[in-house]
Amino acid sequence: MRRQADYSLYLVAVPQFCAGRPVEEVVAAALDGGVTVVQLRDKECTTRRYVETAERLSGLLRPRGVPLIINDRLDVAQAVGADGVHLGQSDMPVVAARRLLGPDALIGLSVDTPQQGATANELDVDYLGVGPVYATSTKRDTTAEWGPEGLRALRAESRHLLVGIGGIDAGNAADVVRAGADGVAVVSAICAADDPRRAAAELRRAVQTGRAGPPPAEPGF
Amino acid sequence: MRRQADYSLYLVAVPQFCAGRPVEEVVAAALDGGVTVVQLRDKECTTRRYVETAERLSGLLRPRGVPLIINDRLDVAQAVGADGVHLGQSDMPVVAARRLLGPDALIGLSVDTPQQGATANELDVDYLGVGPVYATSTKRDTTAEWGPEGLRALRAESRHLLVGIGGIDAGNAADVVRAGADGVAVVSAICAADDPRRAAAELRRAVQTGRAGPPPAEPGF
Repeated sequence: MRRQADYSLYLVAVPQFCAGRPVEEVVAAALDGGVTVVQLRDKECTTRRYVETAERLSGLLRPRGVPLIINDRLDVAQAVGADGVHLGQSDMPVVAARRLLGPDALIGLSVDTPQQGATANELDVDYLGVGPVYATSTKRDTTAEWGPEGLRALRAESRHLLVGIGGIDAGNAADVVRAGADGVAVVSAICAADDPRRAAAELRRAVQTGRAGPPPAEPGF
Repeated sequence: MRRQADYSLYLVAVPQFCAGRPVEEVVAAALDGGVTVVQLRDKECTTRRYVETAERLSGLLRPRGVPLIINDRLDVAQAVGADGVHLGQSDMPVVAARRLLGPDALIGLSVDTPQQGATANELDVDYLGVGPVYATSTKRDTTAEWGPEGLRALRAESRHLLVGIGGIDAGNAADVVRAGADGVAVVSAICAADDPRRAAAELRRAVQTGRAGPPPAEPGF
């Protein structure tokens, strides 16, 4: 049976965005704050370093039962026994990844457009990374923003769990959840935060707030 | 049983070095000229493109029984059913690669120094890529040249098959073989050649010449 993961607060840990701190230091703090899943993403390092960093994160996450997902690199995921991979539209095709990793691996897919979101209904993935929800400077290779409306429309069409990403912080995370996201993913909001534990805790609370229902009505005139 | 490969003439196919031609066009010509093994190396492309290029090369090589080896990326090798991987000192550790790919995969390792060559005796690899034998502009991250003397010294110490790489052409390939190499690897000498078929054929003849024994003595005074 496929393992279920809790995508409520999904940290995309990018070593280059950790403000000079070791990524494992940031991840450890974020775990204390309530992060429920961690993706390691490093597009710049050697394979050797990717494996070494992934091994350190695996050592942090495994005792806590928090899944480790590796961006793009199935080989790195396999080498460290990670829980799965996150694939972009230019990464390994999902069909090949599922064949190589087997039915128990977590496989996530980035969808940048409604068309990609629709196509994903045919694919054996565990969740979709939907982004950017809001404008962001972290990823520049994306096109238009989904906005809460786009996310809501995708929610109506998709059979998959949805994780919003892009420009999400504690101030708008509840809106993303209300629009239908099963969780929110962040890079800088935690990696670059002065206090990653507190940033994670605030985001986690915002997700809970979003799940509790619509915002209180504005007082009428 | 481990599959045996013929490393006599080893083409490292780098798409960026093919003078604007599709890499499969260059590889097809080189196969006609007598290349015995092909490595695909692309450090710059997306995973998706790496897989697609590897699939096209696999389609060329498989009918001819010529092994396809993928540089660095075990995931790409697995996705296309390649014969193995070539690993640098900053790539996946050999132990992890062997564990993931199994006993039948071809695994090559680059050794840049005598120390690395000695350490490799402890590793379960199929061959060593020994380079640079001569000065080269293709790889700039390497240190001192091995020269034929260094290669000869490694030959005396190593239990592995040795493939020389770096600055090798039809004019010096015989010397590399005489120094103890089981084969020669080239990038630009074939990829950038006006006529890759002819370049390969000339290199192949030079390897045969080297195997035939020492060069004819200079006429004495």
